[in-house]
Amino acid sequence: MRSNRMDLQGDDLTDAVVASFDGSQDPRTREVMSALVRHLHEFAREVKLTEAEYFTAIDFLTRTGQISTDTRQEFVLLADVLGLSMLTVGLGNPKSTGATESTVFGPFFVDGSPEVELGGDISNGAPGHPCLVSGRVLTTKGEPIAGALVETWQADEDGFYDVQKETSGPQNRGHLTTDAGGNYSFWAVRPVAYPIPDDGPVGQLLRAGGRGAMRPAHVHFMVTAPGYARLITHVFARGDEYLASDAVFGVKDSLIADFVEHPAGTAPDGKTFDEPFYTVNYDLILATTEEAQQ
Amino acid sequence: MRSNRMDLQGDDLTDAVVASFDGSQDPRTREVMSALVRHLHEFAREVKLTEAEYFTAIDFLTRTGQISTDTRQEFVLLADVLGLSMLTVGLGNPKSTGATESTVFGPFFVDGSPEVELGGDISNGAPGHPCLVSGRVLTTKGEPIAGALVETWQADEDGFYDVQKETSGPQNRGHLTTDAGGNYSFWAVRPVAYPIPDDGPVGQLLRAGGRGAMRPAHVHFMVTAPGYARLITHVFARGDEYLASDAVFGVKDSLIADFVEHPAGTAPDGKTFDEPFYTVNYDLILATTEEAQQ
Repeated sequence: MRSNRMDLQGDDLTDAVVASFDGSQDPRTREVMSALVRHLHEFAREVKLTEAEYFTAIDFLTRTGQISTDTRQEFVLLADVLGLSMLTVGLGNPKSTGATESTVFGPFFVDGSPEVELGGDISNGAPGHPCLVSGRVLTTKGEPIAGALVETWQADEDGFYDVQKETSGPQNRGHLTTDAGGNYSFWAVRPVAYPIPDDGPVGQLLRAGGRGAMRPAHVHFMVTAPGYARLITHVFARGDEYLASDAVFGVKDSLIADFVEHPAGTAPDGKTFDEPFYTVNYDLILATTEEAQQ
Repeated sequence: MRSNRMDLQGDDLTDAVVASFDGSQDPRTREVMSALVRHLHEFAREVKLTEAEYFTAIDFLTRTGQISTDTRQEFVLLADVLGLSMLTVGLGNPKSTGATESTVFGPFFVDGSPEVELGGDISNGAPGHPCLVSGRVLTTKGEPIAGALVETWQADEDGFYDVQKETSGPQNRGHLTTDAGGNYSFWAVRPVAYPIPDDGPVGQLLRAGGRGAMRPAHVHFMVTAPGYARLITHVFARGDEYLASDAVFGVKDSLIADFVEHPAGTAPDGKTFDEPFYTVNYDLILATTEEAQQ
């Protein structure tokens, strides 16, 4: 039993809450909770948080949890629009490794996406112009990584991920394995800029903050290979009008690539189209586990 | 469109997120969100938050929202155990007004409790020793406040509020109106120390932190009267072994009162008992709206 934990005010209250975690057997828990309590209290003191605002926050957080489902993660979205996701990504992925830069994971990844052959089509009827996405998975020395697992997901021409609408199966979502040359390629639709879901608490926050909800067009990647640090990133479309005002602060200059428009005709892989199609080529570079830990 | 919101790292990222709220039409929203973002980012930077910890936090917060219901508020409980509730209470209720001190609201208040006559019984079959709770509602000058609304709620002898178990209606919960002398009185059961609900995310946090979940025995009050600041408080039982280790840091010395044991016999209001019963008398003092704003 701790002594004299009564009549606590101001700094004494903060000290008592921090000390309440002294009994934890995990030093990291003590470290994280101590910092969390101190910064949380400093925030409340700095703004002189009112009881009405406290209850507004309780209600906001509760609704943020309750609107979340297996296919919608509103707390990830909240962390995204508050810049916490990108901050954490930056802390965990120092630029110096030479790997492709990382960006936000986002709320729309789904486990168990369809397996696709190299060059296969993952659009599955999603609206949009055909787009061939290809590149290599490489080491920081430029050597191909064979057998890397490439997971990809993206929105369609209407700005929706499959999980945001009724579909007869996954669309624009899949996973494949690189060949001996480290190559990956698949057909999807050309991604477009879209608003993050704004019909929930995070949308209310954006409107209250006078903020936009748009994200520039991008394709998501998560790449894993034994011995290498997992890469979570996007490839953004050069020229998108929202590159400099991404709602989740996720754009890196190095992640911008050309989505090249081609007239109707024959694509590099021999497919023919009677409508324009697009191609984008982007190499994904993985740091070794050792490189990532430096 | 903001310019150059790309390649953001460290302080630049924080500045960009803060600036993203510049367009809010509400100055208080800008103030609160600016401080929230700065302190949130400082926390993450100080502890070098890992991506695994980020996802642990996302999952924790999601579950905290999803376990909450109309009768269980896990985010209030979280704010309680992090001391944020008491900090907010302290910011909103300076001790200097002369009113009864405030403490946490807690997660177990329910709107629409039964009306009870002065001296009526709200226990409704809840297990525990009978306890007569009485006192006056007074101004800071000691004058009675007639017609004040006194709402009260508490746990039973097993440490449970009615909403935590199956009952045939509300137990130990009710509201009444003070008489011309400012008097209130009701029968409930003697409150006992109890653990806050620890079968959810907050319970996991307490265990990870090596913390106890116990709260000292108390009766909740919320008192309102036109022209006076609302009072939210508890009356704690003197001698309780958890007074100095309240899981939610809510104890004030001035809120501790004697719950007096009486042998079987006749109570002050003429009721007779063939078992021991208890009485507690505590005056609840309200600041005027003006006094509270000073």
